[in-house]
Amino acid sequence: MKDLCRACLLVAMLVVGCVTQRHATGNAEQEVQALLDQQVADWNAGNLAGFMQGYARSDSTRFASGGDVLLGWQTVFERYRRKYGDKETMGKLKFSDVDIQVLGRESAFAFGRWQLTRESTNISGLYTLIVRRTGDGWRIVHDHTSSASP
Amino acid sequence: MKDLCRACLLVAMLVVGCVTQRHATGNAEQEVQALLDQQVADWNAGNLAGFMQGYARSDSTRFASGGDVLLGWQTVFERYRRKYGDKETMGKLKFSDVDIQVLGRESAFAFGRWQLTRESTNISGLYTLIVRRTGDGWRIVHDHTSSASP
Repeated sequence: MKDLCRACLLVAMLVVGCVTQRHATGNAEQEVQALLDQQVADWNAGNLAGFMQGYARSDSTRFASGGDVLLGWQTVFERYRRKYGDKETMGKLKFSDVDIQVLGRESAFAFGRWQLTRESTNISGLYTLIVRRTGDGWRIVHDHTSSASP
Repeated sequence: MKDLCRACLLVAMLVVGCVTQRHATGNAEQEVQALLDQQVADWNAGNLAGFMQGYARSDSTRFASGGDVLLGWQTVFERYRRKYGDKETMGKLKFSDVDIQVLGRESAFAFGRWQLTRESTNISGLYTLIVRRTGDGWRIVHDHTSSASP
């Protein structure tokens, strides 16, 4: 009888594990969407450091665009600071046509269109993000960005 | 005793399920690498139809570059045919710095550098692929490609 109870307990734990996993996947899409919303809000407040919280604070965090690859959270931050040094250059950021797909318990990807509206020139393009569930929540570990031809 | 056996059987099935999943994930990286190798071989043989076998034959298969998004296997094929109509334009394809990461039992992503060596102009850039395990094997469902500035 003791063995039976032990076996039942093990089964129950496994079932709870499965249900929790399903629940986590269900929430993941909303959590990734919240991450993107926060990034847009931070960008539009001129808060580049806040925007950078969306990226995993890791040396393997990657930013790819054109033919260039940058590695490491700090390096990515420096690129943004160099390219978007002030609020006028940052302009107003908008994401549209966003498609978030959860790929596993701890991974998802997000694809969408970005658009910067500025007093000088408007620019736009596309992004593909790989996001991972980290100790700090969902964070971007890979960002591949392309720009539309002017 | 019967109940105990039944419970044990259930636990055994769950354990086997976990082990199978782990095994599948272990092989996934090699299978995705094989998919990319096959694409390069087909491209370099001037076999665009073969190359296209790497993409999921689905209306939601997506190809993104610059600011443009194409949807559907057939549409992607037509773009390749339009842009790379003959062997000279196709040139020799090479992938390098390939990073494949398995994201779940049925998903992975691949990032790397592509290079076309041609008699006229050489071109190169980066790609991020989302690949899914389908009934036909691993297939690309999302391709975000960018080109290095000439």
